Amino acid sequence: MNLNPADSAFAARLSADLGPDILRPAEARYLEEPRGLYAGQQGLLALPRDTAEVATLICHANDARVAVIPYGGGTGLVGGQVMPEGPTPLIVSLERMNRLRGTYPQENTLIAEAGMILADVQAAAEAADRLFPLSLAAEGSARIGGNLATNAGGTGVLRYGNARDLCLGLEAVLPDGKIWNGLTRLRKNNTGYDLRHLLIGAEGTLGIITAAALKLFSPPAQTGTALMIVDSPAAALALLAQARSQLGEMVSAFELMHRQGYDFLAEKLPEIRQPFDAPPEWSVLIDVGVSGGINPSEALETLFASGMEAGLVHDGLIAQNRQQADDFWRIREMIPEANRLIGSVSSHDISVPLGALADFIKQAGARVAAIGDFRINCFGHVGDGNLHYNVFPQVGKARDEHDGQRDGIKRAVHDLVDELGGSVSAEHGIGRVKVGDLERYGDPAKLSAMRAIKAALDPNGIMNPGAVLRAG
Amino acid sequence: MNLNPADSAFAARLSADLGPDILRPAEARYLEEPRGLYAGQQGLLALPRDTAEVATLICHANDARVAVIPYGGGTGLVGGQVMPEGPTPLIVSLERMNRLRGTYPQENTLIAEAGMILADVQAAAEAADRLFPLSLAAEGSARIGGNLATNAGGTGVLRYGNARDLCLGLEAVLPDGKIWNGLTRLRKNNTGYDLRHLLIGAEGTLGIITAAALKLFSPPAQTGTALMIVDSPAAALALLAQARSQLGEMVSAFELMHRQGYDFLAEKLPEIRQPFDAPPEWSVLIDVGVSGGINPSEALETLFASGMEAGLVHDGLIAQNRQQADDFWRIREMIPEANRLIGSVSSHDISVPLGALADFIKQAGARVAAIGDFRINCFGHVGDGNLHYNVFPQVGKARDEHDGQRDGIKRAVHDLVDELGGSVSAEHGIGRVKVGDLERYGDPAKLSAMRAIKAALDPNGIMNPGAVLRAG
Repeated sequence: MNLNPADSAFAARLSADLGPDILRPAEARYLEEPRGLYAGQQGLLALPRDTAEVATLICHANDARVAVIPYGGGTGLVGGQVMPEGPTPLIVSLERMNRLRGTYPQENTLIAEAGMILADVQAAAEAADRLFPLSLAAEGSARIGGNLATNAGGTGVLRYGNARDLCLGLEAVLPDGKIWNGLTRLRKNNTGYDLRHLLIGAEGTLGIITAAALKLFSPPAQTGTALMIVDSPAAALALLAQARSQLGEMVSAFELMHRQGYDFLAEKLPEIRQPFDAPPEWSVLIDVGVSGGINPSEALETLFASGMEAGLVHDGLIAQNRQQADDFWRIREMIPEANRLIGSVSSHDISVPLGALADFIKQAGARVAAIGDFRINCFGHVGDGNLHYNVFPQVGKARDEHDGQRDGIKRAVHDLVDELGGSVSAEHGIGRVKVGDLERYGDPAKLSAMRAIKAALDPNGIMNPGAVLRAG
Repeated sequence: MNLNPADSAFAARLSADLGPDILRPAEARYLEEPRGLYAGQQGLLALPRDTAEVATLICHANDARVAVIPYGGGTGLVGGQVMPEGPTPLIVSLERMNRLRGTYPQENTLIAEAGMILADVQAAAEAADRLFPLSLAAEGSARIGGNLATNAGGTGVLRYGNARDLCLGLEAVLPDGKIWNGLTRLRKNNTGYDLRHLLIGAEGTLGIITAAALKLFSPPAQTGTALMIVDSPAAALALLAQARSQLGEMVSAFELMHRQGYDFLAEKLPEIRQPFDAPPEWSVLIDVGVSGGINPSEALETLFASGMEAGLVHDGLIAQNRQQADDFWRIREMIPEANRLIGSVSSHDISVPLGALADFIKQAGARVAAIGDFRINCFGHVGDGNLHYNVFPQVGKARDEHDGQRDGIKRAVHDLVDELGGSVSAEHGIGRVKVGDLERYGDPAKLSAMRAIKAALDPNGIMNPGAVLRAG
């Protein structure tokens, strides 16, 4: 695929159509990504104000065969937002398209432009006495279009699903510059192939999402939070089954944490209050959101008692107020920051079938130990089978000392995930980091269908080339 | 697209590969559909026993350019399962592939082959103390592969979603005969384009689903059922909002019925017990499935009281036992049969945004009345914005007398749906009945993307030609 640079002649044609104030050379922040794995060399930055302008930009890029990098909040962790090589791309940032187009509380829906920051979407829902349940660490800067393009996960998936489950309709500009007006607020609509679900998770390789109709929910009447010390990951899962049997969908979050996370917090962020005198080997953070007159503390006490009786739980704390609940959540939420401060040798965002989860943790530990002496911080959304399995140097060692082992660790962990029927990217996506993993572990028939779809919808290969699929 | 017939030479090649006992001429029942709108002329019927045999069949059909009609339970209502014209097709019925491949209660999943009857899937879940919530009138004969291919709806959508929301992974044979092994039981998996959601709802035009990993749920601890008389469709929606505010996801079903349905039952199925002395103009059938120690009758009484206080409800019955609940549901479930016995002039499976629902009912009545004097039975899944809006002759008139008005009625109803941002096929799909509607009302960019995807994955156009998209 021969792509051309977004050069001054190209920029001049865009300016002639759209005026000069939507274009400028891309500053450094548009050419970086949070993990520092890739850096874009340069880029022509476009800041369209509406969908028609996005369509004009894409038409020009398609005619000129210029690569287009869709840009949301820039918080993605797999390099989907930067193109480190190839001719200068057109970077299309949706940041100006950040309007709330409408809120429909009676329908439990709202329509947001793609550039709206996730936290602002949450706030708009709350202002209408509704809940938009997508919640993740980067919600203060991630934009909803990017959340959808990457099918973001987070802590609300257990109850409310991934980003794709929260979207009723999309508006998008396809690679030929046509606007697809699929911004339906319908709960049921069986009229042909579901383009919405094809664009969600395609990471900007099949078009640019410009707006979305999102599902809202009645917020639970009351919430409750507990930290419980469990015997093992298997006990955590058995406790989750008890919780669901007692409370059904009212179990909102169920996060597994290993002692290593508490230790890292003590080492790097000692100002964070530790809830237990001695960090527990395994613990779970549980949120319930209840209705129907249920008392959340009593519901958590019932769960604790049944967990004790079944030998799953041996200690725990139930938050007595909002402050305490926030303190418990702060532990979970700051673990990624503590990880970053320690500096991982290799980190993995994996999922396995729930039945294989305990086995994964056991076997992965053994396989990593066979490579070297490491500290492992394993935590995550255990009810989704999604673990962040991160490998760190021992105290006093630097990550650089393990450069030669990184690929081996990654391969060992991913091979095991694959053997257990799991996924090597549970929630972060493929981006550019995992293109090779997708080729190695992906189903061949699926890969060939993906390539056929990409070629059919984007024959010139302009949309985010090199992400998800190797550039043609 | 030049397709060839599934002639004796073709059959001989299949028999040589697969043995003779999976092939026979298709009996009449494989060439009919429930509404009698289409009849297949003839067909070569294949009854594969496993996925490899399906793949062999498709490879042969693709090589020979023979049309393939995937066949599940044959219960679809839009003619997706019969090809009325063109060269003799190969009809691939999945009925022998009806095994339960595995149940994983701890994971809340099971794996079913595509030919498993929906009621058998429900029973398999129940045997593991779990719930598979897809529920629809044809569940005793519909097969899960067909339910997924058409993204079936039904009465459980309000709480649990459409068929697509209940599927974690698929195994399918693509139009080139390749087997896609996407039978993951994962809750999170962001590894490339979501082929699953592309095949779901594609009505067999992009491949044949051979097995599915399905989501199960903890069954609610207790259930309760009520029939409430509401002032209007708008009052029904306001009552639903109250129910959700009080009970969150524990509201399992919320079905709207018009007096006409009760009248049709009295006229054609007088053995069905009528719950009210005089049929109410508008009523809702409500199911709640509760956990956490909630008493379902008390929860329904609280809802009734708040509905009365708000002026939404003016009478109602709360089922005192399972028998009474079943009696209430029998009313709702037999309305389609009463409709069939009356004989509609035109029936419509539509959805609109919830905020436009009351307006739709009002305006549609006026537009139909402008065409002629009809009885209208409007009922459906009001919480999903999905109405079955069916138009019948007056007493003493025959449907044939209105043959000349049928197209006008359909057009008037669908035009209104389109004006209100709705869908002309909420849950039944496009099949062959609504290909023209999709062309008329579908978004042009979406249609062009659909055609490109179809051409890319099925370049010879063998898979269910003429369904969803006009045969090329």
